[in-house]
Amino acid sequence: MTLVAILTVSDRASRGDYEDLGGPATESWLRAAIASPFECLRRTVSDGVESVGDALVALCDRDNADLVLTTGGTGPSPRDLTPEAMRKIVTKELPGFGELMRQASLAKVPTAILSRQTAGIRGRTLVINLPGKPSAIDVCLHAVFPAVPYCLDLIGAGRIETDPAVCPSFRPAFLDVHRFSASKASSHAGG
Amino acid sequence: MTLVAILTVSDRASRGDYEDLGGPATESWLRAAIASPFECLRRTVSDGVESVGDALVALCDRDNADLVLTTGGTGPSPRDLTPEAMRKIVTKELPGFGELMRQASLAKVPTAILSRQTAGIRGRTLVINLPGKPSAIDVCLHAVFPAVPYCLDLIGAGRIETDPAVCPSFRPAFLDVHRFSASKASSHAGG
Amino acid sequence: MTLVAILTVSDRASRGDYEDLGGPATESWLRAAIASPFECLRRTVSDGVESVGDALVALCDRDNADLVLTTGGTGPSPRDLTPEAMRKIVTKELPGFGELMRQASLAKVPTAILSRQTAGIRGRTLVINLPGKPSAIDVCLHAVFPAVPYCLDLIGAGRIETDPAVCPSFRPAFLDVHRFSASKASSHAGG
Repeated sequence: MTLVAILTVSDRASRGDYEDLGGPATESWLRAAIASPFECLRRTVSDGVESVGDALVALCDRDNADLVLTTGGTGPSPRDLTPEAMRKIVTKELPGFGELMRQASLAKVPTAILSRQTAGIRGRTLVINLPGKPSAIDVCLHAVFPAVPYCLDLIGAGRIETDPAVCPSFRPAFLDVHRFSASKASSHAGG
Repeated sequence: MTLVAILTVSDRASRGDYEDLGGPATESWLRAAIASPFECLRRTVSDGVESVGDALVALCDRDNADLVLTTGGTGPSPRDLTPEAMRKIVTKELPGFGELMRQASLAKVPTAILSRQTAGIRGRTLVINLPGKPSAIDVCLHAVFPAVPYCLDLIGAGRIETDPAVCPSFRPAFLDVHRFSASKASSHAGG
Repeated sequence: MTLVAILTVSDRASRGDYEDLGGPATESWLRAAIASPFECLRRTVSDGVESVGDALVALCDRDNADLVLTTGGTGPSPRDLTPEAMRKIVTKELPGFGELMRQASLAKVPTAILSRQTAGIRGRTLVINLPGKPSAIDVCLHAVFPAVPYCLDLIGAGRIETDPAVCPSFRPAFLDVHRFSASKASSHAGG
């Protein structure tokens, strides 16, 4: 079954000083938007390049998550190190995710440009950074999730179907053509 | 004479399993948009950091191309390695090209954010990554080509004039002022 | 008192061959937009990774500037090396600044995509690259400055208040909540 992992990144939430709001908000959004069967795993980790990097590697390589969503740690503060951890563990960065999340968030708050969110691929896992605040998570997921199911197809991860009333997703027609002819669609990726 | 090279990046096209559509589509677009004399060179190479990097270096350093357009290999699939090859051989990356190509493509398909297209400079050559699909190539070239002639001026590459009915290009007025005074316009580059 | 430094990057201006227009334009903009007390320091340096990097390190580490604005050297020309110098001396890059400056400038000129402007953080200093041309500086500062005061708060730099009639700035409400409770707002940064 498709496995989606949510990683809350926060010093305070990991110490129990603070109730994690980002993790539950992300899970609620996914439960409303994904129409196909999936399992959801939730973890919490303190800020830091090593702590976040180790947690991401475990979710990708040991738990074989198809999709990992992080929440928190993407701002300019000294302890915000999620993007640095990401870059160390992904083999490909997908800059379009961060660009679109910042653009969608800019329509709400001018401080959206302070977010350093990105996305990337490790093996058969897509990793996307989300902000920590529930309202911002909602804006970001609405913006980028339509491209997620097709991205998972292209990297050989589990298949996801979305509820079009909540989040219409998109698979270009030519992918299916190549599937029928049993040839790899990889050379068409992204365009 | 100004030399424009088109590099098709595709395992299947390089094996002859698949008719290259991106290369001819790119050449057709250029023949319609460029009004000044130019020569067009077409090559095909398999996906891969080394294969694409070597082909780009040859086009830049040996063939002295003024402009190189790649097509294909920019998505998230394991064999999509064109941006990785690019980053190894350019001395400067121009992130605005990829940002604008993704933004223009987003108006057509939500999966545009999966494209990792970028552009960069090697010596006196501008290299731009295009997608593989002809309709997406058209969208991307329309978006970024208006800035290409001035960029070639700034890096000392050959001069290009476009047909304003197809693709209006733009050269800021102050460049010409500095030309008349025979001084370098470099410190004004990009704005 | 809050210290803002303006670094003009230009071979010709540093030799005195050319009157620096970018530095004064940046200072005028700041004097109109910032309503709280601040000191303004102006320097000029020649293009180059080392010259610009050394000047930036001195402004951040020796002069303890809260905000450094560079002007010039961000284009594609061989001597445009400001972003390369930036990347060597910042510990965090904030890609949203460059994206938004290019997007705002694109509404004026299609060559905006040639600019490689970025922003980043070194210790308690925010560094932002601006173009060299006064009209482009104005467009870029209007676009990104609303997020600057909150960014300075998050990195522990000096407080800035803006004149809302010139440049409305924005501090998310939850920051103040955390301030009253004397806890760090860092895990909320950027969203």
